[in-house]
Parts: sequence; structure tokens; C-alpha cells
Amino acid sequence: MVAGAGESGARRLAGWGFTGVTVPAPAALLSWLGERLGPGAPQQVRAPRLDVLPAARRLPPLPGEVSDAALDRLAHARGQGLADLLWLRGGVTPAVPDVVARPREAEVEPLLAACASAGVRVIPRGGGTSVTGGVNVLAGEAPVVVLELSRIAGLLAVDEGSSLASFGAGTLGPAIEAALAPRGLTLGHLPQSWELSTLGGWVVTRSAGQESLGYGRIEDLVAGGELVAPAGRLVMPARPASASGPDLRQLVLGSEGRLGVLTRVTVRVSPRPAGREVRAWLLPDWERGIEAARALLHERVSLSLLRLSDPTETAAALLVGLGESSFGSLARRYLRLRGVGEGCLVLLGAAGSAVHRRRALAAGAAVLASHHAVALGSGPGRKWLADRFRHPYLRDSLLDAGYASETLETAAPWSGLAGAHRAVAATLRESLAGEGERVVVLCHVSHPYVDGASLYFTCFFRVPVEPAAAVARWARLKRAANDALIRHGLTLSHHHGVGSWHAPWWRDEVGEAGARAIAGAAAALDPAGVLNPHVLLDPVDRLVE
Amino acid sequence: MVAGAGESGARRLAGWGFTGVTVPAPAALLSWLGERLGPGAPQQVRAPRLDVLPAARRLPPLPGEVSDAALDRLAHARGQGLADLLWLRGGVTPAVPDVVARPREAEVEPLLAACASAGVRVIPRGGGTSVTGGVNVLAGEAPVVVLELSRIAGLLAVDEGSSLASFGAGTLGPAIEAALAPRGLTLGHLPQSWELSTLGGWVVTRSAGQESLGYGRIEDLVAGGELVAPAGRLVMPARPASASGPDLRQLVLGSEGRLGVLTRVTVRVSPRPAGREVRAWLLPDWERGIEAARALLHERVSLSLLRLSDPTETAAALLVGLGESSFGSLARRYLRLRGVGEGCLVLLGAAGSAVHRRRALAAGAAVLASHHAVALGSGPGRKWLADRFRHPYLRDSLLDAGYASETLETAAPWSGLAGAHRAVAATLRESLAGEGERVVVLCHVSHPYVDGASLYFTCFFRVPVEPAAAVARWARLKRAANDALIRHGLTLSHHHGVGSWHAPWWRDEVGEAGARAIAGAAAALDPAGVLNPHVLLDPVDRLVE
Repeated sequence: MVAGAGESGARRLAGWGFTGVTVPAPAALLSWLGERLGPGAPQQVRAPRLDVLPAARRLPPLPGEVSDAALDRLAHARGQGLADLLWLRGGVTPAVPDVVARPREAEVEPLLAACASAGVRVIPRGGGTSVTGGVNVLAGEAPVVVLELSRIAGLLAVDEGSSLASFGAGTLGPAIEAALAPRGLTLGHLPQSWELSTLGGWVVTRSAGQESLGYGRIEDLVAGGELVAPAGRLVMPARPASASGPDLRQLVLGSEGRLGVLTRVTVRVSPRPAGREVRAWLLPDWERGIEAARALLHERVSLSLLRLSDPTETAAALLVGLGESSFGSLARRYLRLRGVGEGCLVLLGAAGSAVHRRRALAAGAAVLASHHAVALGSGPGRKWLADRFRHPYLRDSLLDAGYASETLETAAPWSGLAGAHRAVAATLRESLAGEGERVVVLCHVSHPYVDGASLYFTCFFRVPVEPAAAVARWARLKRAANDALIRHGLTLSHHHGVGSWHAPWWRDEVGEAGARAIAGAAAALDPAGVLNPHVLLDPVDRLVE
Repeated sequence: MVAGAGESGARRLAGWGFTGVTVPAPAALLSWLGERLGPGAPQQVRAPRLDVLPAARRLPPLPGEVSDAALDRLAHARGQGLADLLWLRGGVTPAVPDVVARPREAEVEPLLAACASAGVRVIPRGGGTSVTGGVNVLAGEAPVVVLELSRIAGLLAVDEGSSLASFGAGTLGPAIEAALAPRGLTLGHLPQSWELSTLGGWVVTRSAGQESLGYGRIEDLVAGGELVAPAGRLVMPARPASASGPDLRQLVLGSEGRLGVLTRVTVRVSPRPAGREVRAWLLPDWERGIEAARALLHERVSLSLLRLSDPTETAAALLVGLGESSFGSLARRYLRLRGVGEGCLVLLGAAGSAVHRRRALAAGAAVLASHHAVALGSGPGRKWLADRFRHPYLRDSLLDAGYASETLETAAPWSGLAGAHRAVAATLRESLAGEGERVVVLCHVSHPYVDGASLYFTCFFRVPVEPAAAVARWARLKRAANDALIRHGLTLSHHHGVGSWHAPWWRDEVGEAGARAIAGAAAALDPAGVLNPHVLLDPVDRLVE
């Protein structure tokens, strides 16, 4: 039902996904980037030095499976943010955990107790795909245990009558759908990292799947769960609704391992759709694109997906071809005839029965037509569905050619969306001007709501071969982006999370009182402060660590 | 558009609503109760003794309007729970605040600072309709200021393009709709207390309006807001979505004045419906009723309201007449012919254009028909819509005749709904057996969700004339109910809140870790612990205080 990229081979150490899958950078894209950024400096991935890892420090006895194998320690040192890749690809050995623990569910509590009383840092880790420094091991006095959730996985219970299913928090995306499929059910939560990330990771980072318009964000899907903290166990029974005080589930959502280890999650499931369909259109310009997206939301057209690309992203998409190889130039010629200049690409998706899909897409088409859309047929949508989890692999291929791609995302009310797009894109484009480098900025709306939408920016820029210089350049761009988001009153993240890379700016976003309230809750659950101490509440800028 | 009960006259001191509105108890209901409970002891409302109020204690200078008038202090001493009415109707003067403060928005911060540093308790109060002891002034050493929000009211801003509107937290339900109506907008949040309660009160108690099926609960409607706490100001900008840590709005929702004073709320608004329509059916029995309700949710029929009464509530509803005076007996005769025994009343509502209403109700009717429903036409629905805010007045008329009516509500997944209904109803029915009294228990589902539904219980029992004895009897029932909810793993409240009357049981519901997390956040925002200290976190049973 959901087409994955491959699941072939092991997880890459210094790159996205599985070793058996590679997505080469299209020549057209490379030359387009070359024209705009100048030639890239081709780079090779250097093998990490396993022989130079520091000896594991003394730890208290820990229950369950614990590994101090060099490769294990290195493979669990970092997430999948651009800086992580730059270090690892450069052969620089980062700070590594002293051990990787893979407890069973019952072992989490004693493990946390042992670590808390010995002052050992604990970094809970699901799929390790954080792009915000959310699972990074940083240098420091205290030993570090990475608590991997791979053994706390699988379907625990299904209550079909109530549309509820419970899973171990370490369950990967494909395993969730595989467990639900025989029962005719789906979770429908499909972030780009779906093949590699876990339910627990989605919850603690407030993930939004590509079909959140149809299935809701992860906060809409979570009905209950269980969190084990040093100070006790937080049991959250599945409740359709409650007025019994603040919603503790919402405190765990976004807690990023800072409050405890999420071990179980009960989710709301839906009937498995008979099919998925994505269609493409072009709209004359970005402003009309935003208007059309808003209209689709206000008319409550029953879509599962809506993506609207800005003109730069549309140009790049047409360039690399949307289905057929010759499609791009044909489409552009046709559009020029129809009076659509650069145009903005729109994808609409529907999931369900053939009748439902036809009706939903027809209703969507009618709204788009009233905004002067030109239909591009079903080819681009089919290609997008086939490639939806392959796009992140491109980052590695572009790095091979000397071009970095970094993404960041925010959200704004509809009335502020165009302004937010303008302001953030301008900041990003100028962010490396000080060192004479240009930045190409693409953007799309991918998660629309009745009151606003997300903005997902992709930045391309050249990176030096030397890892520290490359990370320093990235950090400059990232700081400029964070500053701009705060300056314009925007949220630091729509679905990636805070991690350690947004944390110093997070205090500016939520304010002193907001940070104090969350710190108060964290101190109550983790008095020793051993859990993932550098995310969310750590005010220190650790972008180059 | 929304028909109110009257808004005539002042607020009653020892009873529901406005002095100009009275809803006499139908004779048929009184004799039905008499048959089941025995004769009631008629009771008159005694005038409260204003002359015996204790002198106001010494307070620090407070900014803004402050009143120590005896009537003001008495009128702001209590909420609208049954025990509150029993004390006030009996002429017993409860603990009263030392003063009632009515600050403007800018005065809240200095007022809280003055109170926090002097150890003065502060009870924020919106409409004062709490039925959980949520705004009660209790005896104690520290002086008490009731902070009334009536001056922090009114529309602040509308962002029509983003479907957002901002109000002062003290804005009453009718004022919200009146401000939005000229713009063709509605909030659509219509709790039974709508004419008397405020937006801020709805937020901090996690209210659910009667049309939550269409418009969502208050948590779905809140996009942002502002909370003033002794330790700082929590500014929550309107965000369509964010992954920037735990959602602080969700910490404020349900905080019941314990974390700070909510001063502003930004809500998501909808197009104003052209009309509202409610239709009635009878289903053969409770189990089939639950099945039908679940099917309506799973088929996502676009309704604004669904109410399903259990057989006892259905009998009472038919008895008092649903539209026409002779309707009850006619309906029952007809139903017996159709093979529907006692039957369960179902109301379905739709809000929107005539076309939308017709389609939605037809779709609803089709689902009900497949569950053997018998249509009752439009009369009962019209009557329900006309009386929707008048029902609470009946509590006073019944008390005049010696019968107490108490309500409590919970929620459960669909698979546990019938069991929860059985268990709680049985407990309530037996709760006064120790003193030889019977309890009539009615119940309905009023807020259905994809994964479950609410259960709203109404209990009738006789009360002694002497207030302390009457409150003691009520407390026995309430303790039995709270114990039963916890024993069966149910939430203590679906939309009334925790207040002081559920607080000792709330720790059992959320567990030690959950209570600690919320206490940690509260201590961070209100280090002196002066804000509404007896709700949520106070473990002492204060039912008879």
C-alpha cells in the first residue's frame, strides 16, 4: 500500500537510509546549482577511525543488553542532521556514548534508576533520524548511555471497536503498517523518515506525516501511552477526551526524551484506504497558490495531502522531471501558452476508495480551477508517490558533488504566510554573503490547517571539503535562520523538533515563563537532570559541537 | 441564531441563571420521582445573612477596582455546584473572599505580584458556574481575593483570512457570538452554561460545547492566548501547529487558575451556520444505541451534535413531553407496536446551510435506520433547541420540592462504554443505600469521538432540609462516584473539570508522576502557591467545606 524506498541493506553510518539504496543527483539539478552557486568541490566519504574511540568510562551495572562495541558506539553517536553528516563523512570521530543499551520494557526503570543515581546521562533513541541534534552525544564529564528502543517494539494490543492500537515505542513505521494491514487498518502517519523512524520518536518530536491533512498530526493520533521517568512511571490510559486537568499526553508530545523514556503508545487508527492518488497542477503564482490552498482548507475538501511549491522549488521540480523525462520543457512551453509564467506546483492527494478519491480530487480540482490552475495530469503525482521516501537520499549525492542541502520548517497563520516566506527566504539567501557564498532557497507548503500552514524551506549552498569549515558555514546559516524565525514571531519548528540546535532560541520562542514551566515539570520527573540534557532546556549554542 | 433562555434580570445568588427566568418542575416528573424516591421535603430558599460576614482581613494595596461590599463578597464565594446551592439556599453563610477585585488587563500583573508577596490567595473567576468547587473560597489563614475577569472582556482582534479571533478571557458566551455574527463568523462553542460562562473559564476547565461534534472541544478551538502568572507572563501566539517542545497551550487548558490568570484567548472561528436543526429517533435498546452512535462516528457523518439517552433518561424525557403535551404516551404506544420496548432516544443535529443540514441528517437517518431506529420527527429537536440552556434551572425547582439533581460525566473508549455505564450507574444507584435512600440514575452520551464517547449521568435523590445534612448526603454520593471512576480506570471528568471536589482523586487518575509534573510546572509559575490553592493539586477531601 505504502511504497517504500527499499529497506535493503544495513543503515548507513554517514548518510541517509539503507546501504542498498542510492539516489544519484540528476545532472540537470547539478548544472542548475552550478549556475547559481558556482562549481562544487567534490567530496568523498572518509572511513571513520574506530581505533581512536576513547575507552568507555566506568558505569554502574546496567540491566539488559549493553554494548560497548566500537561500531555500535559510533553508529549511535549522532542523528541525521546536516552537521552530523558533515562530521561523519569527513572521518571526524565525534563524541560517542560509553555504551549502547537495548533494554526490554521492564529493564527501563532499573536502568534509569541506576543512571540517575550515578549521574550518568541517558539519551533515548528511536530511529536516530533527528535533524535537530536531538539524539547527539556531546562531550562532557558524565558518562553517556544511549538507550536504544529497538527491543521495545511491536504491536501490543488492538481495540478494533474503538479504533485504537498500542505499540512499543520503538516500532518502526513499516512495522506499524504491517501489523495493522491484516486487520484492514492504518495509522496513516508517513513522515519522510517513515522507513527509519519510530512511533516513540514521532511522539516526542511532534512529527507530522505527509498525509497529516487526512490523518492528522501525531498529536491528533496519540490516545495514550506510558513514559518511564527516573521519578516514576507516567501511565496515560487511552481517553477519547478528558477535562481532568492539563493533558499529560501533550506534555510528553514534544518532550524529546527530556522528561522520560516513552515506552508505549496507543494510537487512533483508521480504515486502511483502498488506494492513494496524487495529482498535480500549476498555479500562476505563489500568492494565488496560497489563496487556493486556503480555499481548499476552508471548503474542507476531503484531501489527505496538499503541497504547494514556490516558484523556485517549482522550477527545480520541473527541471528534474516530474514523471516523464521530457515533461519539464513540454510543461513549461504549454504553460507559457496558457499565460502561467513561472508557476507554482500543487500536488493534491486523496486516500480511500476509488469513489472517494475521485470525488475528493474533483472537488479539489474545482477549487483550483477557480484560481486559474492548469492540470498536469497523474504522472507527476505517481512519481512523487513512488519517490516520497527516496528524496532524503539525494542529500548524500549532492554532498558528494560539494553541495549541501539543509531544510528547516516553520508555520504561520494564513494572513502571515506570504510575509513569513519572504522574510525567511531573504534571510537564508543572504546568510552566507559575508563569506561570499550564495544560497538557493526553495520552499513549499506541505501541512495546511484551517488557520494557517507550514513552510518547508530547502537551502542549497556549497560546502568546503574540510569538515570543521563545512560545519561552521552551516552553523552560520542555521543561526541566521533561527534568529529570523524568532525576530518574525515564528515557531522554530513545525515538525522537526527543538533538539539541541534550536534550544537556545526556544527560550525566546516560549518566553522565560514558558521555559520555566517545562523546566519545572522536567525537574519533577528527572530530578538529577540526566535525561538528554542538551535538548530543549539547554541554553548553550552547540551547533558546532 | 442561538436561542438563549432570557438574559433577563440579575444573576441569582442561590440558584442558576437570571432572576427573571424560572423553569417549574413538570408535575409528571415530580410524581415519577415521588414513585421512585418517596415524597420530597419541600424547601424554601432562605435569605443569606449579610450582617454576619467576617470583617475583611488586612490586604496589601491592590491596583484597580476592588470591592468589599457584603453582597459582592457573598456573590463571589461559591460556584454553582449542588453543594454550593445547598449551603446558599439554606441561608448558611460560607467562607467569603476578603475582597472582589475587577482588574483591567494591565492591572493583573501588579495585583498578582502584590498578593504573591503578601501570601494572599487569589481565585480567578469568570462566570462562576463551576460545578466542581473550582472557584470556591475556603476557610483558611491567608486572606482571599476573588479576581473577577468581567473587565477583561470583549473582542480584541479578528484575522478573517486565518479564521482567528482574539477575546479578553472574561468574555461571556453570548458576547462572543454577538461580536462574531456581524462578520458572518461563529465560535460554535455552546456549553450548557453558555449564557453565564466565559471563554477563559471554558479554556481552563477544558469545556466541551453541546456541538463539539461539529466545532470541536475548546482544546481544538484555542489557537493562542496569554496567561499572567506571579513568575511571569506566558505569551502563546496563534500557531496552526508547532513542534517546538511540549504545547504550552495544553498546559493552560485544564489549569483551573492554578498556573496563572488567563487574560486573552485567540480562537479558531468558523463560518456562521445559516441554520441549526435537531431531529429525534428512538432506538430499540442501549447497546444498539451505542453501536449506532459509533457507526455514525466511523462513517464520519457531518453532524454537529449527537445525543443518545439510556432507557431511564429516555423514559423521563418521554414523560415530560418532547414537543407536544400528548407526545409521550402517543410515542410509547406507537413504539410498542413497532417492537421498540423502552427504547433509547437519539438526537442528531446539523448546523450549516439548508442543503448541508438535509444531507447530513439524511446520512444520519440512513445509519440509524440500519440500527432499527424509529423517527420521531422534528418536534422533539425543536423543543430541545429552544430549551437547551433552560435545563439547569430545573435543578432549583426540583430542590424546592425536596429532590436534588446532581450530574457527573466521564468518557471511555467505545469498547468500554457499556461496561462503564453499567458500573457507574450501579454505584450511583446504591450510593445512599446505607441511609435507606434511593437514587434514580439517568445517563446519556453527548460527546462522541472516533475512539469513544462521554457518559453524562444525572442522579436524583431526596435531600434533607437542613443544609449540613443535605451536603453530607451529596458528599456520600460524590465520594462513591469518584471512587467508582478511579476503580474502573475512568477519567474523573469529561468537561466539568477537577476543581476541589475531584482533586483528591485526581492524583489517583494521573498517578504520582503525573501529579508531580503538573505540580512542578505550577511551582515554577506560582512559587508562593497563592493561586486557587484548593483545586487540582490539593489532596484534601473538601466536599463538605
